[in-house]
Parts: sequence; structure tokens; C-alpha cells
Amino acid sequence: MKHFKLLLFAAMGLCALGSHAQQALWGGSTLISPEINPDKTVTFRLQAPKAVRVQVTGDFLPTQKIQTPYGEFDAPGTADLVEKDGVWEYTTPEPLSPELYSYTMLVDGLKINDPSNVYRIRDVKSVTDVFIIPGDRADLYNINQVPHGTVSKVWYHSPTLGKDRRLTVYTPAGYETSGKRYPVFYLLHGMGGDENAWTELGRAAQILDNLIAQGKAEPMILVMTNGNADLEAAPGESSLGFAQPTMELPKTMEGSFETHFPEVVNFVDKNYRTIKSKKARAIAGLSMGGFHSLHISKQYPDMFDYVGLFSAAILPHDGTTSPIYDNFDAKLKTQFSKNPALYWIAIGDKDFLYQANVDYRKKLDDNGYKYEYFETPDGHIWKNWRIYLTEFAPKLFKK
Amino acid sequence: MKHFKLLLFAAMGLCALGSHAQQALWGGSTLISPEINPDKTVTFRLQAPKAVRVQVTGDFLPTQKIQTPYGEFDAPGTADLVEKDGVWEYTTPEPLSPELYSYTMLVDGLKINDPSNVYRIRDVKSVTDVFIIPGDRADLYNINQVPHGTVSKVWYHSPTLGKDRRLTVYTPAGYETSGKRYPVFYLLHGMGGDENAWTELGRAAQILDNLIAQGKAEPMILVMTNGNADLEAAPGESSLGFAQPTMELPKTMEGSFETHFPEVVNFVDKNYRTIKSKKARAIAGLSMGGFHSLHISKQYPDMFDYVGLFSAAILPHDGTTSPIYDNFDAKLKTQFSKNPALYWIAIGDKDFLYQANVDYRKKLDDNGYKYEYFETPDGHIWKNWRIYLTEFAPKLFKK
Repeated sequence: MKHFKLLLFAAMGLCALGSHAQQALWGGSTLISPEINPDKTVTFRLQAPKAVRVQVTGDFLPTQKIQTPYGEFDAPGTADLVEKDGVWEYTTPEPLSPELYSYTMLVDGLKINDPSNVYRIRDVKSVTDVFIIPGDRADLYNINQVPHGTVSKVWYHSPTLGKDRRLTVYTPAGYETSGKRYPVFYLLHGMGGDENAWTELGRAAQILDNLIAQGKAEPMILVMTNGNADLEAAPGESSLGFAQPTMELPKTMEGSFETHFPEVVNFVDKNYRTIKSKKARAIAGLSMGGFHSLHISKQYPDMFDYVGLFSAAILPHDGTTSPIYDNFDAKLKTQFSKNPALYWIAIGDKDFLYQANVDYRKKLDDNGYKYEYFETPDGHIWKNWRIYLTEFAPKLFKK
Repeated sequence: MKHFKLLLFAAMGLCALGSHAQQALWGGSTLISPEINPDKTVTFRLQAPKAVRVQVTGDFLPTQKIQTPYGEFDAPGTADLVEKDGVWEYTTPEPLSPELYSYTMLVDGLKINDPSNVYRIRDVKSVTDVFIIPGDRADLYNINQVPHGTVSKVWYHSPTLGKDRRLTVYTPAGYETSGKRYPVFYLLHGMGGDENAWTELGRAAQILDNLIAQGKAEPMILVMTNGNADLEAAPGESSLGFAQPTMELPKTMEGSFETHFPEVVNFVDKNYRTIKSKKARAIAGLSMGGFHSLHISKQYPDMFDYVGLFSAAILPHDGTTSPIYDNFDAKLKTQFSKNPALYWIAIGDKDFLYQANVDYRKKLDDNGYKYEYFETPDGHIWKNWRIYLTEFAPKLFKK
């Protein structure tokens, strides 16, 4: 047969049309955007001849201050693209540091994803375009030519929550045929997130693949739950269908998730070749997931030997009545009386939860409870949570 | 602690800003789009006060004819949205039939994804917004409250291709603990596709979950390969990083993929509880994947008892030299002398490969080789391939 590709292109409308019409119909932009230049500056481009103003907004730009009733916060900055022959362009004035960056574009005030970039990640209800500047720690976020673990979407039944629920499970390279048993690290997301968050913006599978290949982390199973107790699964992955996601979810910090957590551990111990003991279990989470990790590990003091609080909320909301949150100090005393192998607290120096963590560390200090503390610049952002994972995972299961 | 959610919203810039500024910064559109109305008409909306013309283009609209050097083809139609107070809107004049639909928007000629819809699927290098009109066969494409299989991204080593390569593997509900062995269905994508295609636009995991739950399909393992022999994995999932995808891939229809295929079968038989026999193996694919299925099943006539050609290319390109394509008629004779349980051919009546399939069926008829044939309206589109999967899977492993 002749010309299969050409016939296919024609059938898809890709062949006979001019490049602009192709772009209009099929999105096959001929522009390169973002372009990571040899000097690590980055160029953004958009073909929009009729636009009056085109901007890019993202976490690679200097932040802008915004005032809120709760104080001053940092928001991503914006930069203007300049138009020539219908193509708008902006190049960062300086090279960007190694990191995974997120951005979107603004066309006359309309926020859009970059039509030239297919790599986008949803975070809560925002979809942002992403790119990686390689080097240093960011090399851990890339897929390198190392043995790769398996990433699975698995459903377990929760009798307590009355539904089947979805987990993301990473098993390390070689798991399927090694016959060995492995320790398990339970890694929890923040408010508005789900069981996909840590493998998407969190790059958890890449981080584990790379740390294990480098001999820096032990081979381990990584289990990423959905911390919204009222939901089966991430948006688009449940019987709710394509209902649009929302931040305003019920049953997130009122005890249901923490109470049901042993069901997850039992499911994992039954369905995977795990080492079924405290010394081979870790739990950590970001923000709300740190809150969950704190309260789960305190409620079930014989379950986890390693605990990580990443930019964690600490105290329950006023008026929350779950017995999970009762007797905080007594439960904490019990937990620390059992000498956890590691209690690790990390936060950014601009995080809105910074003071809450200062207060919590004072409580631990006052009681002589041992923990490790790791502070970074910046606030309540994924950049920090990826860093914390790269720092925390190598500390696990070494004893 | 008071106001964790409010503090978090403030930290994310969601709280203090007006809705338009929120949308600009964070994409949290307050519009509902698409809205599936009670009568199954669908309304699309976009907030773009400065735009002059806003259109929607998608496969729910009447197609428009385009002329190409290879003949006349159908392309998705467009419809104009109408502006009021800065919000553009279009409602389909008629209810839409049950189906998974894809669309994008055009703002003054710039193709964008709908900012109000987070559900998007990449197909080759186009990212389209999607929605499902429920009912009839489309209910098989939804996630229903039935037992769910596990979907895994797994890496195998190919000595022939000299790289680690990524597979999508679906294991049916109960696999982990049943102790049973299962038949295996190898399901292949088309040109420009990858190991993610059948679970994304193809809805293969939902289709299998639902058909198995209804007792219409046998519990089976579904293995979805990457048919681009030069690549490790789907765009964004390999050591190429976030390089933009392209249709123009080397080593797709020159025999490398077909030649290496027993390595996939061996890997699956070694890593999963499979029934290791011809009667418990099926292979099918769409377009290029149908071509692969045809030539693999003919080259290895003792490997697959069930073969499905979905809108398949049939003959190799002129000048292709792989021995896989040698002695076509003799190999086909051998394959059919072994009485495959099912040889199934399906195509749309407007497919650019329709005549090639007429010719191939004539060859089979002339030789008295038994096959089943299934014809649908329309052309070389995902709608048809989802239909073919729902028709083919129930026929497998019943003998």
C-alpha cells in the first residue's frame, strides 16, 4: 500500500490545510512553546494575530503581592508577550533554575493553556501547562533511563465509608518477579487534591525510581490515597463522571478519613507483598495530608514508625467532634513513648501554616519528643512538597 | 484551628480576588461549560468580553467536507457562540445521542481548550475537551458503581528493540486475590497513538469493567502496548521528557514492532497469572494497530486464537523489506489452517481504508477463510473504535 501516512493525515484533515487552518481545526501548532534555550532561558510563543494583549503567568516569574483579609500573600507574576507578524513572544530575562514550572497564558484577559504545549496538569480545578528545567534536584523529577516501578490505579472497598475507593500504588522495579516483601510508604495529598496529585505535580514515581536507582532510597511500595472521605476517586475517575472538580469538599478534615485508614493498610497488606510491621511503614502528607498523617499516626501508634508532616495543618477546626482528635496530648505521649524511628517536620518560611508549625514544634520540644526539622524558602507550593519527598524518602526503612 | 480552608484559599489567591481576576490567575471559571441540559442538548459558554468571534468545533456538529489531493474527507463542523454581557454561548439545536464527544473552541481564530472544562484528552498532538452524553452504549464508557479492575503502567525490557518500554495493563476486578489464571487480550493503538490511547479516548478500562460486571465479557487481562518501536513510552512518559509529540514517528510499520511482539507476550506470561495458550490469547488493534494485529497473528500462528482488525491498514508500504511481510498468502494459509476461534473485521463505511478492507475480505472469501464482518457508519474515528471494542470483547474466550 502506498501513502498510508498521507492518507491518514488527509483523513484527519492534517494534510490539505494550511498551517493556520490546521492549527484551528486540529491544534497541531507549528510554534515551539515553551522553548528551553541552551542558556536555560525560556521562550513562550502564541500565534494570535487579532489579540490586543498577551501575557504569561507562572511560578517562574517574580511573585506579586496580593492583599487578603487574612494577610498578604504571594501570587504568580505576569509578563507581557510582544507581537510580531501575529506571533507573540516572551523570553525570560535570566536563565531559570532547575525546577518543574507551571504557567498559563492570558489573551485579552482570557486565561488559556498554551496551544503549543500538550503537557498540562490539573491541580484542583486549574489546569496549568508545565515544563522542566533539568539539572540538580530537578533531575529527580525527570524520567531517566533507570529501572521503572509500576504505577497502578487500584480500587479497595471501605466498609466504614460505604464505597469502593481508588488508590494509586507504586511498586518498585522488580516487584513483580522478586518474590520479596517490601516496606510501605503511605503518601497523602492536600485539600482539593486526590489520589493522582502526588504522581502528577508531585512526580512521586519519578522521584522514587531515581532515588532507588541511585541507591539513596530503599525499594518500597508507595500508596497514595484519596483523602476526601466522601468521594470514590479523583475528578473524572468516579461514578460522578465528568462533573467539574471543586475545592469545597465535605468530609475532609472531620475524622472520617483518619478513622477508616486501617482499612487501607489492611487492603495493601492483603493485596501486596508487604512487610506487615510498624518498622516497615511510613506515613506522610502535604498540608491537609500532613494533618491526616499527624492524627492517623497518633491514633494508631503501633502502625507507623516513620511520620512526615509537609507544610502540615496541625489542629482540627473548632467544633470538630470526631474522637480522632480527642485527647491530643495523651495520644501524642503514647505515640512518642513508643519511640518512632523518625518524626519529620518540614515547612516553607513563607507558609501560612508556619506559625502553627512553630507552635507545634514548641509542644514537641517542651515534652522532649524527638523530631527532625527541615525548613525551606517559599510558601505552600508544590516545589516545596517535591523537595520534601526527595529529602524524606531516603530516610525511610534504613533501621 | 479556625478557617483552614479560608487561609488555604487566601494562600492560593482564591479568596480576596474578584471572580474575573480569580479566573485570570487560577482558572477557576465560574461558568458551567459544557452544560448537559435535561433534554440532552448541550450548552457551551466562554467568558471573553474582548473577543470578536467565538466558535466551537467538535465531533457533535455536522461534518464539513474538505478537499485533499487524496479525495474528499469529513472534518468536524463549527458553530458560532453568541455574546451577551461578555459571555458567549451556544446550545445545540437538537439533543445529542449518547456518545463520548470531543471539542475545542476558537477565539478570533485561536484554538483553545474550554477554560471551564478540566476534562481533556490528548490524541497524538491535539488536546480536546471531552464530555459524555449518557445512555445506550455510552453507558459502557462511564465509570459505574461496579467492581473495578486495576490499571497499571508497567515497564518491560525489549532486547530486540534495545530499551525498556511501557505498557498499560488492565487486570480484572478480583485479580489480586483470586489466585486464578486469566486469558489475555492484546489491544493495539493507531498511528500517532501510544500505550495510553485505549484507556483514554478508547475508554477500555470502563468498557471491560462494565461488560464483565454485566456478565457479557469473560474476566480477562487487557494489555495495551506502545506500537512505536523507536519509542520507550507515550509523550511525556519517557526519557525524552516533555518533548512535544509528533505523528511522524520512525519504526511504526516496518516490521520491528511485529517482530519483537513475542517479547511482550513472554513478559506478560512471566509477570501475570495468565493462561499460557493460544486459546486464551486475543489480539486486536485500530488502524496501524489492526495492521500490526494482522501481521503478528499471521507471523506467529500458534499465539492468538482471536484476531480483531478495527479499521485496519492491510498491506505494507511499497519498499518495506521486513521478513514479517514476506509470503503473505502462505502465512495466511498457515494461520487459517489452524482454525482461529475468531477472525473479526470491522470498519466504517466512510473510512479511507474501506476499499482496502473490501479487497482483503475478497481474498479471505476466495480462499474460504472464515471471518466475521461488522460494518458501521462513519469513518476513521474513535467513536467507531469504542463500538468495535464493545462488540469484540464479549466474543472472546467463550470457547
